[in-house]
Amino acid sequence: MRMSLLALAFASSTVFANEGMWMPKQLPEIAPQLKAAGLALDPATLTKLTEFPMGAIVSLGGCSASFVSPQGLVATNHHCVYGSIAHNSTPENDILTNGFLADTLDAELPARPGSRIFVTKAVQEVTDKVIDAKTAKLSGKKRVDAIEANQKALVAECEKDEGHRCTVAAFYGSLEYYMIKQLEIKDVRLVHAPPSGVGKFGGDTDNWMWPRHTGDYSFYRAYVSPEGKSADFSKDNVPYTPDFHLTIAKEGVKEGDFVMALGYPGRTNRHRLPSEVAETFEWSYPNVVQDYRDALDIIARETADNKDAELKYASRVAGLNNYMKNRQGMLDSFADSDFLERKKAEHAELTAWVNSSRENKKAYAKDLVAIEKLLGERHSQDRTDHLLDAAAPRLLGTARGLYRLAQESTKPNAERKAGFQERDLPRFKSFVAAMERSFDVGVEKALDLHDLKKYAALPKKQRNAAFDKVMGIKNKMSDAELVALIDSWYSNTQLTSLESRQALLESTPEQFAKSDDFFVKAAVALYKGDLKREANEEELAGKIQQAYASYMRAKIAFMHDQGKAVYPDANSTLRVTFGNVKGRGHGTEDGNAWAPFTTLRGITQKATGEGEFNAPQKQLDAIKAKQYGDYKVESLNSVPVNFLATLDITGGNSGSAVLNSKAELVGLAFDGTLDSIISDWDFNPANTRSIQVDHRFMLWQMELDGADNLLKEMGVK
Amino acid sequence: MRMSLLALAFASSTVFANEGMWMPKQLPEIAPQLKAAGLALDPATLTKLTEFPMGAIVSLGGCSASFVSPQGLVATNHHCVYGSIAHNSTPENDILTNGFLADTLDAELPARPGSRIFVTKAVQEVTDKVIDAKTAKLSGKKRVDAIEANQKALVAECEKDEGHRCTVAAFYGSLEYYMIKQLEIKDVRLVHAPPSGVGKFGGDTDNWMWPRHTGDYSFYRAYVSPEGKSADFSKDNVPYTPDFHLTIAKEGVKEGDFVMALGYPGRTNRHRLPSEVAETFEWSYPNVVQDYRDALDIIARETADNKDAELKYASRVAGLNNYMKNRQGMLDSFADSDFLERKKAEHAELTAWVNSSRENKKAYAKDLVAIEKLLGERHSQDRTDHLLDAAAPRLLGTARGLYRLAQESTKPNAERKAGFQERDLPRFKSFVAAMERSFDVGVEKALDLHDLKKYAALPKKQRNAAFDKVMGIKNKMSDAELVALIDSWYSNTQLTSLESRQALLESTPEQFAKSDDFFVKAAVALYKGDLKREANEEELAGKIQQAYASYMRAKIAFMHDQGKAVYPDANSTLRVTFGNVKGRGHGTEDGNAWAPFTTLRGITQKATGEGEFNAPQKQLDAIKAKQYGDYKVESLNSVPVNFLATLDITGGNSGSAVLNSKAELVGLAFDGTLDSIISDWDFNPANTRSIQVDHRFMLWQMELDGADNLLKEMGVK
Repeated sequence: MRMSLLALAFASSTVFANEGMWMPKQLPEIAPQLKAAGLALDPATLTKLTEFPMGAIVSLGGCSASFVSPQGLVATNHHCVYGSIAHNSTPENDILTNGFLADTLDAELPARPGSRIFVTKAVQEVTDKVIDAKTAKLSGKKRVDAIEANQKALVAECEKDEGHRCTVAAFYGSLEYYMIKQLEIKDVRLVHAPPSGVGKFGGDTDNWMWPRHTGDYSFYRAYVSPEGKSADFSKDNVPYTPDFHLTIAKEGVKEGDFVMALGYPGRTNRHRLPSEVAETFEWSYPNVVQDYRDALDIIARETADNKDAELKYASRVAGLNNYMKNRQGMLDSFADSDFLERKKAEHAELTAWVNSSRENKKAYAKDLVAIEKLLGERHSQDRTDHLLDAAAPRLLGTARGLYRLAQESTKPNAERKAGFQERDLPRFKSFVAAMERSFDVGVEKALDLHDLKKYAALPKKQRNAAFDKVMGIKNKMSDAELVALIDSWYSNTQLTSLESRQALLESTPEQFAKSDDFFVKAAVALYKGDLKREANEEELAGKIQQAYASYMRAKIAFMHDQGKAVYPDANSTLRVTFGNVKGRGHGTEDGNAWAPFTTLRGITQKATGEGEFNAPQKQLDAIKAKQYGDYKVESLNSVPVNFLATLDITGGNSGSAVLNSKAELVGLAFDGTLDSIISDWDFNPANTRSIQVDHRFMLWQMELDGADNLLKEMGVK
Repeated sequence: MRMSLLALAFASSTVFANEGMWMPKQLPEIAPQLKAAGLALDPATLTKLTEFPMGAIVSLGGCSASFVSPQGLVATNHHCVYGSIAHNSTPENDILTNGFLADTLDAELPARPGSRIFVTKAVQEVTDKVIDAKTAKLSGKKRVDAIEANQKALVAECEKDEGHRCTVAAFYGSLEYYMIKQLEIKDVRLVHAPPSGVGKFGGDTDNWMWPRHTGDYSFYRAYVSPEGKSADFSKDNVPYTPDFHLTIAKEGVKEGDFVMALGYPGRTNRHRLPSEVAETFEWSYPNVVQDYRDALDIIARETADNKDAELKYASRVAGLNNYMKNRQGMLDSFADSDFLERKKAEHAELTAWVNSSRENKKAYAKDLVAIEKLLGERHSQDRTDHLLDAAAPRLLGTARGLYRLAQESTKPNAERKAGFQERDLPRFKSFVAAMERSFDVGVEKALDLHDLKKYAALPKKQRNAAFDKVMGIKNKMSDAELVALIDSWYSNTQLTSLESRQALLESTPEQFAKSDDFFVKAAVALYKGDLKREANEEELAGKIQQAYASYMRAKIAFMHDQGKAVYPDANSTLRVTFGNVKGRGHGTEDGNAWAPFTTLRGITQKATGEGEFNAPQKQLDAIKAKQYGDYKVESLNSVPVNFLATLDITGGNSGSAVLNSKAELVGLAFDGTLDSIISDWDFNPANTRSIQVDHRFMLWQMELDGADNLLKEMGVK
């Protein structure tokens, strides 16, 4: 699973095989390729964001999804609604394990606080407004501030249309900016999730692996006010009526068939500079993997005999495991490749091209040198900050965020820092509420101790004096002293209670200053230093933005010069990728290859009756009895479960509707394979395969689970 | 591994895909198929047994092999010479583990006693002589005796050519008989075997499995007298100069390439009757699997701290594991198939065809009914004898065999029972000698106790009174009593010593009768009963032979009537099977498929540094350093290790030369895959793949092991 990430924006690429996360508006440019791959529709159909089928494609913010009924039913991955299932799970009613099915609208459960469904309503280029004439002349922090001010103004204007969320997204390394206007549905409800023995079958063992047998689907429903407007949860709300919804294909796909995924890929880095590649693969990822591994060990140990704590951290554990495997997979691929050498060679070609003409030299040469120096500074700073940032307890982060909010709230809305405006308040509220089901003092203390030990062991010079003073850190503290120190923090805070956190949401800076809560006091004491650090970072970021955009401009010009098409790297905006259902000539183990489909047989082969392979007995019985219903594929002599395709997806694509050549739903994308995730940096057509849950399995399992109401609603029965 | 079995003869089959173990003389009939598959030679070339390439193909009696140099160098599988390596291994010089390479002819080691290389010199049909006019009128034991007498006479006549071994082999269910005349090379020496971490890499875990990484090759050399005649081992002997030898292909095969295997497949049963299928899969095989499993457990327990005993039983353990996995694999395939139903339906069609015309009815109808009754009798008898036969200790079997030999030796040679003639004496000598390195009293006692407990627990009526009396078995014996009984047997025998066994080889029946050795006395006491049982079995066998031949005649007529070609089932005679290098769309695990090649990478993936996956460090280092020499295949980015092909092989084919379209050596067949071995009964083109060691791996590993002398001899260097 787990193509769900948050995203940034950067870069562009040449086009190979099925590489390409296309902006819908670009599709007519590649109409011949689409036709050749098997698309039956006119590609122009796919360019219209507010028509069928694009109008049915939604974002969950980090995951993709789609409307599959006229009553606002939304299909996505089980792992995309995992937090909402966990949020509603208790030791007494463990719907995470047992699954959940609302027989009626009344039985549907509120999703985890902060859950959203975003329906894209308009996309408009705003580059000239973000980098206006005045901004173009600025540099450093002033440039960052100006860009931010322009974006905020554009967003504020756009969001005057109540119930909408507007975002300015950067494309092509901040060369272009687009305003994305989305209807923000705030009343999201959990409708149906299979048991985790289906939806998470294979668990972390099978994560990023093939052969795969995960029934990674679940359903939300979008609710709006009786007037059809975006509204917070209310019993009076009614199901949202989408303008368009997908229809379920009557026939499933077979090997070689055309498929396309419509969704919101988060981030790819295919045109990063060689120094960024080196820093990432030689320093950042190895450290991140170690940090995640440690955190997982600690959480496992601390929640071993505590079902409530285990449920609270289930979502985080899933996330950590997912990222860890992802990063480690990329590290393995990197170690086995000549990626950095190729990257350097490509960059040398670009540099040579830049220096080959007076005109190019004048336009790009200076920035091409400057960007290297600036990135060097950033990498150096990141290394310095690594242990310091890790050593900050989660409640300190909460207090810092809420204090910053209080400070910003003293200004007129338009002048507040992005992320702390009125429009951001609901996010803070959700955040504060969600901690209630994701925070355990015992676990946090253990995590703090681990991080603090590493930080406190640094020589004094490498530590942050202000942080040390506020937190009570001294030279050469023993483990016992650190434990006592951490205990003292938590003995002197109320932030573990929802009421206290909520009270801070309403507090003024003066009220913060008077607080005797340890973490609040610490946040107040660190505030000036935090602002200074932010200003320094922004100064650097402004310089980088300017030089990086120039590097990207050079790169695009160079590629156009070679007659190569360019699509922007993923940036969490709506994209289309197309390809074919296809296995692979080489598998994971030497001598194995990959068939394009898995079947119910594999569930029986893998089932252990416990843990990650705890397939429900009812399901195993149905498989044994060959109760295939209408979903049997003769050539497989079973029901397909998952299938491979050559789609170019990444984190954020999780839950993406996968459509056939007639734009009918045939599956949901939910994962890639471990040896292909380095494609986020270095596209590898030989290895890259997306993994989809086959809609025939979804329908088969839903029938088994008695979800006839939903099958009817989707027009299947 | 382990396509090495001894063989019987039966049946025939229709031709699908690459099904078919063709008699060389049949090849011109299928010339179009051979050409279509890619054969570059004239198929007629392959029909001449005493020319190239057939003249280079030899039998080891249970395994296949081929001459690969003008100095009698013979290439075959590591597991085919396993007994010879074990025979020469001691705790001090464990060549089984470390491998063996003779740098000079003088350093070559005598193979295990009884090792033979058979070079086929002539094949001649002798049906009219075996079933002559007189014999055709006989039935029961008389028929068996007459057939045996005719065969013995033919063999005796043929073997007048000294140094040759002649065999009458039955084809098409004893409808046809052929005389096979083979040069019998008795001085066989071990030249080279890789370490078991190469030659047996994967051990029993990987046996019958894919992906596979076994370097299953080794080399013998054939020696003859200075005059070029077959001779027992002597220092004066010289390497045999074969008339023809294979050349090593310069280029290896790639996916889709034509390949053919030339060898001696043991036995297939593709046209057995439904009742035989039922008895085999519902009674015999399940019992056999249990017996082998028990024996393996006992041997493992008893040899746990005894390296010498472990080496003595290494070959038997390998054999038991191999058979057990084979039979269990067939049972699994059977359980998963409709084989018996199809068999019954086919037989019903045949019966309907027989009854559809007056002529056919007259010719076959009676025997078609009779055979069912006769087979029923045999199955019933086999069930009765099962525990009795198992309860006979190995030394009792030895004594019985030697006493029978003494008895038969009192008759003129031509009148002696087949298997006890002068020509059989060397086999008895080898058998007696080989026990020295394959027999341990402790292990045998434990095996005896296990078998005896089951037999002794039978009600008296189901036991054999004569056997009970001789062996001292009484009703309701306790375990302690059985242990004491077994101890008493071994306290009163000298047969554990080589001298005693050899002395018996020279003894007369009178000398046997005077012996006070327990097992010799038992053999003498049981003799008359044994003869009676044999006579009863032969009476039944004679009836079965007659009726079965008639059934087969009907079946062949029926198939010809449908225009279907028929090839005889395997019977340990020289055959050709052709096909292509080819992976498989479905693998072992659901969602995996099989690539046609494995590579060195897989060795590194599987290596554990111990046990079955103990790849030599030197090899692992070479792989890590990518020292591929001349053997790298670019598309694999490594050296191929094993490859899959659609060849129709079975037990006995082990070591078969696999040739390309120009009849150059490209590999050695050594195994099939677990889900395809049921093809011995029910050919399954979708599953059936043969596994070959790629000659490029063999040469690569030999270079690594310093076998430059052999590479030169084979013309590679």
